[in-house]
Amino acid sequence: MKTVELTNGSKKKVEDRIVGRHVYGNLYGVDPAKLWDEEGLKELVREAAEVANMKLVEVRSWKFTGYHGGVSVMALVLESHITIHTWPDYEYATVDVYTCGERSDPWRAFELIVERLEPEDYVVHYSDRSSPKRPLGGTAGRIQ
Amino acid sequence: MKTVELTNGSKKKVEDRIVGRHVYGNLYGVDPAKLWDEEGLKELVREAAEVANMKLVEVRSWKFTGYHGGVSVMALVLESHITIHTWPDYEYATVDVYTCGERSDPWRAFELIVERLEPEDYVVHYSDRSSPKRPLGGTAGRIQ
Repeated sequence: MKTVELTNGSKKKVEDRIVGRHVYGNLYGVDPAKLWDEEGLKELVREAAEVANMKLVEVRSWKFTGYHGGVSVMALVLESHITIHTWPDYEYATVDVYTCGERSDPWRAFELIVERLEPEDYVVHYSDRSSPKRPLGGTAGRIQ
Repeated sequence: MKTVELTNGSKKKVEDRIVGRHVYGNLYGVDPAKLWDEEGLKELVREAAEVANMKLVEVRSWKFTGYHGGVSVMALVLESHITIHTWPDYEYATVDVYTCGERSDPWRAFELIVERLEPEDYVVHYSDRSSPKRPLGGTAGRIQ
């Protein structure tokens, strides 16, 4: 946190950057029944947001039938997202957990999803999505 | 493509894996007016899906006010996604373009978004989200 002076002369504490953390992975050898379970996957995303201390805004899901089909769940969390895409015929799913703020922990959400989907194998990656430090000089006046 | 024999004895051509490509990046020094423009960002995602030859299923957007706020756009494409999250006070945005199938090109979508948002600087990453080859022996009978 930093204290900045606004254009009207008052002072306000602001975070000096946005902390963004993105954990994503590919899950192999998952039971197709779990990957077709649209409601189960949606509930799993809700639980994952909770354990990771993410503020859930909305969860949506879609099911695509056919041999090439599967389920997609997308959740908007403040201001980032969780997504799961599945291809049951390939026993395959991809998972993205992207959190915003220091109080959220994307690893806990990712681990819960892996624990529940029980893949035979998986890979996981991490990417820092943080903003640069806030350009206080140029934009402090925009703070409302 | 491979030809597999179904349990009823008929034959069908199937792709032997799901090709997933994920291009994502962080954009720095973007004009805050562009980052607050919810409708403009939504339209940009639609255009990006089109140039990348992605089949758009649904686009949603949200605006969060306050100094820590911004806009989020999430689009489901078959079966993958495009997301843009913005933090105008930090002149910052993150972009994910994840495509499914060999005919879609996530780089074209990403480049269009960068071209329109005109960041002073950006970083871009790529991750292969492809499935393993289809376990034909075990699951061919599931093809409908």
